[in-house]
Amino acid sequence: MVFRKDLRPYLAQGSSYFRTCVLLAMGPAILAGRATLADPLPSWNEGPAKQAIVEFVRLVTDQSSPQYVPPEQRIATFDNDGTLWAEQPMYFQGFFVFDRVKALAPQHPEWKDRQPFKAILEDDMKALLASGEKGVAESVMTTHAGMTTEEFERIVRGWLATARHPRFNRPFTDLVYAPMLELLAYLRTKAFKTFIVSGGGVEFVRTFSEERYGIPPEQVIGSGIKLKYAIKDGKPVLMRLPDIDFIDDGPGKPVGIQKFIGRRPIAAFGNSDGDLQMLQWTAAGKGPRFMLLIHHTDAEREWAYDRHSFAGLLDKALDEAQRSGWTVVDMKKDWKRIFPFQ
Amino acid sequence: MVFRKDLRPYLAQGSSYFRTCVLLAMGPAILAGRATLADPLPSWNEGPAKQAIVEFVRLVTDQSSPQYVPPEQRIATFDNDGTLWAEQPMYFQGFFVFDRVKALAPQHPEWKDRQPFKAILEDDMKALLASGEKGVAESVMTTHAGMTTEEFERIVRGWLATARHPRFNRPFTDLVYAPMLELLAYLRTKAFKTFIVSGGGVEFVRTFSEERYGIPPEQVIGSGIKLKYAIKDGKPVLMRLPDIDFIDDGPGKPVGIQKFIGRRPIAAFGNSDGDLQMLQWTAAGKGPRFMLLIHHTDAEREWAYDRHSFAGLLDKALDEAQRSGWTVVDMKKDWKRIFPFQ
Repeated sequence: MVFRKDLRPYLAQGSSYFRTCVLLAMGPAILAGRATLADPLPSWNEGPAKQAIVEFVRLVTDQSSPQYVPPEQRIATFDNDGTLWAEQPMYFQGFFVFDRVKALAPQHPEWKDRQPFKAILEDDMKALLASGEKGVAESVMTTHAGMTTEEFERIVRGWLATARHPRFNRPFTDLVYAPMLELLAYLRTKAFKTFIVSGGGVEFVRTFSEERYGIPPEQVIGSGIKLKYAIKDGKPVLMRLPDIDFIDDGPGKPVGIQKFIGRRPIAAFGNSDGDLQMLQWTAAGKGPRFMLLIHHTDAEREWAYDRHSFAGLLDKALDEAQRSGWTVVDMKKDWKRIFPFQ
Repeated sequence: MVFRKDLRPYLAQGSSYFRTCVLLAMGPAILAGRATLADPLPSWNEGPAKQAIVEFVRLVTDQSSPQYVPPEQRIATFDNDGTLWAEQPMYFQGFFVFDRVKALAPQHPEWKDRQPFKAILEDDMKALLASGEKGVAESVMTTHAGMTTEEFERIVRGWLATARHPRFNRPFTDLVYAPMLELLAYLRTKAFKTFIVSGGGVEFVRTFSEERYGIPPEQVIGSGIKLKYAIKDGKPVLMRLPDIDFIDDGPGKPVGIQKFIGRRPIAAFGNSDGDLQMLQWTAAGKGPRFMLLIHHTDAEREWAYDRHSFAGLLDKALDEAQRSGWTVVDMKKDWKRIFPFQ
């Protein structure tokens, strides 16, 4: 029992019944105090970013701080693609679309000659993009709609279990950022409630968020298609319809936050212009606030990109971060380790 | 310190250091065990409904039970109107619409002669209903849209603080059901996560859910209008638009549950046909399930209504409850006390 062992030094100091009782009653507090002596963010190098995080957390959780925030208001929101896991050479959900179209192709011989499917079957990204928004939307709906929510979950889980990232030859869920996993856990030990606010598909992200990030499905907000309640073979099901319900990106992020959480975060984490409004919305609240952008600067261990990239464009948000004094993580400098397997 | 005092009888049994440590380390477990000796549902009369609740909770929380459900899956969803608070002589949000139209009328002299406003200003419910869905929708949008989310919250809070229920002459938030408050608290002590899934307006319910029910805004699902992110006087705001986003009623309830929670409840509580699909969806999951309907049978202390009522029609759902063996609360018999003030 760790509890008993850790308390031994304290217990040895006194023998009276009363003292023992008080100290044991204080056990959890003492242990919490001791825990802060160990570094909660070992994958972060010492530097301004790490310092800003730790200082903010102290500021809002220390009961004697004039900026103290009660636990129920400690809402922290995280973008997913490029913030919690990688997003190159394209959003990982894009790989799912490609693999899924290929898996379904034998039942659709006509796809060989029809865009956007032809482009996908030939791994021709240029041709896919040339098919325009309509082509991309069709490829997404074909692979994401027309089944029940339970069937879709099964399909995504199956894909995640077998698909491999082309550069690292590992499951996509291996490409989560170790420093961010530590940050999520650290905030939760400080009674923050951690939410994902992703432009990606909400049901896609939910299949791995709990296991990988410790974030339960009810704390995942994302883009979604319409659902319809129906009775199928005598059983109630929710059918996924080929019709956009909500785009949780850019100005959609504060909207999603209000719809799903109903209160403003005190901390927000992103990496692209798609997160700008979420950070602005967070910053505009009363009281202490923390806004952080991840700048992908490490071509060797991960990727280096910002102002002119396809996925994860970071341009206006970087300017505003500099103007407004938001924390910017320089991945190469600030992160000792990128992926847990490194 | 309650902790120390409660443990005294146990401590007195042994004097060895080791024994003291073990007992104190077990403190929380012992206290939890003791708590079950006190009745967690004192406003419920002994009977089949109370028994079914307690037995279900034991079944899914006792680690030695073959039907044990891990805490993260203990999702319980509650309808609001007629399930957590009263809904007669009309949904309480309807009183808000009436009062708000009257408050805004001086700025709209033309309303005196225009429906649906004329009907509302003259307290003429018949004429309001005669204005049809379009008229009712117009009265709702006029009072719920066109302001920021923060302004709307301030308006609703102000109204709740001053408005009085016509029969009981008390704030509407006094008309919550004491037995249900106990049930919510009881489930939470058993690691259930309690959600509201209401046909009412999500932002309306959120203004009092945390204080009144202990349910934080992020666990409230409801109907809603569209929001738009905008910059107003240099500050980001969310504008409420006169455009329905989502109707969380009937078949919309399982859809709302999937959208917002992303997993199926194991227990669901309602009182009307608008809750039927939520209960069906809950019942259709694998493993132990609990479905409960509140039957309003107490005209003296509350109201008696079911198959032919305006608000809270309970007809098809009552039939299905009887067919499927769902628990039906007979308010008059099963509830010792209805409102906390009684």
